[in-house]
Amino acid sequence: MSSESAIELPLGFRFSGYYAGIKSNASAKDISLVVSDYDAVAAGVYTQNQIVAAPVVNCQAKTPQSQARAVIVNSGNANACTGKQGLADAERMCQETAERVAAHTGSTLRADQVLVMSTGVIGHALPMPSVVDGIAQAAATLSETPASFWDSVDGILTTDQFRKVATRTVEIGGRSVRIVGMAKGAGMIGPNMATMLCTVLTDARLTSDRAQQMLEKVANCSFNNISVEGHTSTNDTMLLLANGASGVEVTGSDLQVFYEELKSLTIELAKMIPTDGEGASHLIEVVVTGAEDDAAARCVSESIASSNLVKTAIYGNDPNWGRIVSAAGYAGPKLDLSRLTLKLNNHVLFENGEPIDYAESEVSASIRDNPNTLVHLVVGSGVGACTHWTSDLTVEYVRFNSEYTT
Amino acid sequence: MSSESAIELPLGFRFSGYYAGIKSNASAKDISLVVSDYDAVAAGVYTQNQIVAAPVVNCQAKTPQSQARAVIVNSGNANACTGKQGLADAERMCQETAERVAAHTGSTLRADQVLVMSTGVIGHALPMPSVVDGIAQAAATLSETPASFWDSVDGILTTDQFRKVATRTVEIGGRSVRIVGMAKGAGMIGPNMATMLCTVLTDARLTSDRAQQMLEKVANCSFNNISVEGHTSTNDTMLLLANGASGVEVTGSDLQVFYEELKSLTIELAKMIPTDGEGASHLIEVVVTGAEDDAAARCVSESIASSNLVKTAIYGNDPNWGRIVSAAGYAGPKLDLSRLTLKLNNHVLFENGEPIDYAESEVSASIRDNPNTLVHLVVGSGVGACTHWTSDLTVEYVRFNSEYTT
Repeated sequence: MSSESAIELPLGFRFSGYYAGIKSNASAKDISLVVSDYDAVAAGVYTQNQIVAAPVVNCQAKTPQSQARAVIVNSGNANACTGKQGLADAERMCQETAERVAAHTGSTLRADQVLVMSTGVIGHALPMPSVVDGIAQAAATLSETPASFWDSVDGILTTDQFRKVATRTVEIGGRSVRIVGMAKGAGMIGPNMATMLCTVLTDARLTSDRAQQMLEKVANCSFNNISVEGHTSTNDTMLLLANGASGVEVTGSDLQVFYEELKSLTIELAKMIPTDGEGASHLIEVVVTGAEDDAAARCVSESIASSNLVKTAIYGNDPNWGRIVSAAGYAGPKLDLSRLTLKLNNHVLFENGEPIDYAESEVSASIRDNPNTLVHLVVGSGVGACTHWTSDLTVEYVRFNSEYTT
Repeated sequence: MSSESAIELPLGFRFSGYYAGIKSNASAKDISLVVSDYDAVAAGVYTQNQIVAAPVVNCQAKTPQSQARAVIVNSGNANACTGKQGLADAERMCQETAERVAAHTGSTLRADQVLVMSTGVIGHALPMPSVVDGIAQAAATLSETPASFWDSVDGILTTDQFRKVATRTVEIGGRSVRIVGMAKGAGMIGPNMATMLCTVLTDARLTSDRAQQMLEKVANCSFNNISVEGHTSTNDTMLLLANGASGVEVTGSDLQVFYEELKSLTIELAKMIPTDGEGASHLIEVVVTGAEDDAAARCVSESIASSNLVKTAIYGNDPNWGRIVSAAGYAGPKLDLSRLTLKLNNHVLFENGEPIDYAESEVSASIRDNPNTLVHLVVGSGVGACTHWTSDLTVEYVRFNSEYTT
């Protein structure tokens, strides 16, 4: 969902977005604020890079918690590799947000109830006068309207070509709870790098333990399974806020119902990122089945999805099964060669370890004529499975990532 | 060395190269034969891909050994993913070579004294009538002349833009032994994939144990440390033949002298491969020091050398240190962030975990004006070090690898 069509937002959240002059493009927005009217459970999943941006360090210390009130985001500057000054700036963003939101809503708010994210250029100190001004303006314009929601979505984007939003309404005991997610990301791109950010909001009531547990689990089948070029950012952050404003507590067997909807929403969002990968002409879905366990399947699907040779072949509409099979071969996990079977867009190209005749021009046309390419590799007779999504590697990608200069 | 200038070849080897019609380009050669006049010690190092081509399976069973007599290579077809037929064809290449060489040299030769390599398209059966004819012709034209040597070098090339040859003469107890190496490779390329092959010949006398040990060790600082796009081929093979024709046995402290020359020769050859990477405009040398041990350093240097974002930045003459430092951050080994220091072409860009001011235009010009780029990252205060070499990622690479079709 990326248009401003009717959207059902979770209850008890207010939104705003503002242009504070952090980005050079004055028609964009670079501050995004989400405020919960009630104390919310907050869970977080973060980059596995050891080089961690200041806002990530700040957030990691604050999740999980059960009194979160706001998420403040700036785009245009990642506040990464910025040393002690960066840590101080991230905390100041939280303090300013707490004070300004408190002043405008008449409620009390502490800095430790505010979560912070940044995305954009790395190695440069935040322009704090602009950031502080932007926070003040954003706090002054908070609203629960869809228009304000879309402003807050725009405030997290960098090189994205489209907004990344998904919603779900879940029936729990005859009553509705709502989930909305917004994400940004199109690869680790210039001028220095970009990042993946995602905020999921729900008016369901969850415990912080459950929220954290669910978020980690869904991350492992959505945002942890996508790549544009496999370069893990310093800023990747995924947050879940549950404010309970619906009055509906999710417990017992409803937890699974809610989990499945949350999972499907995050997969929907995650797939938008390689779809929007710089220069991408195909979204490639790599499904590996028959592995000894899911972890083994993950290694293999990740290896295929990360192969430049696979990605350039798809760009060239070339059913180059040798590249796919050999990328599985160096992934690590033991393959059962006698069962190794590859399907591309449901055409069998390699079966039980032997190449087979196939209608090459037909398979090539199926790649050319579809924006999505499905690669399915069976690696044995085990129950392990995993799916990765990636973009193809195009001439435009290289141009895009080489022509920027710091 | 790639010209036909005077070359000092090891004693007791004969060479030939021939065009047998395996490649479509009739002005190329696609059969290469090297014969030792004496039983030679042979050592081998092979691809770590589980999807292993038939000639690799054949060779693995024959090394190390001490009665090797010949190496037969075809280019234009990798004999990979070809099932049982492929295994039979690889063995038949050895049998034909043994018989034909025996007939022309008057010596006896068994198939198990012949080593075999293939490179080129995968998933297609070898055109055996052409291959057998080529072997016969190659055996009939064997000679110890430099011209024949260069013919044999041409017979292993696929998409290479230049021949990859290096030589050394080593003084052992006042007498000379000679080493020559020939290699091919320019990335895992089309029509399906290419590969890295390397044959090193010496007239020194070595035990097969020592030869195998040394070859494994030098592979770990040469051919195992290069990448074009990180896609491990199904056919990678590195052979060392030592025929003792110089009459000089290498023992005791001379082993270290010989080892150092062998290592420097293989590094020289290995660096030619990313230099010749398709579309490459820079050879990037990534040096990591200060790691806990060499294995940790290897993970980090490999991660940086494999990053598309690092490789596109160098293509764009962009000293984008954020991409380099963050690629180290997701490599795995623990980094000492307080000591993390990055030099690019000897300019310090990041020091002890903090970004520093540097003359950006000067560093950018140093990338633009040199075919080689040196990246040196200090990750702590340990003694572990490793060097990787890679090519930059260019628009031409993507074009090259997407425009081929099977």
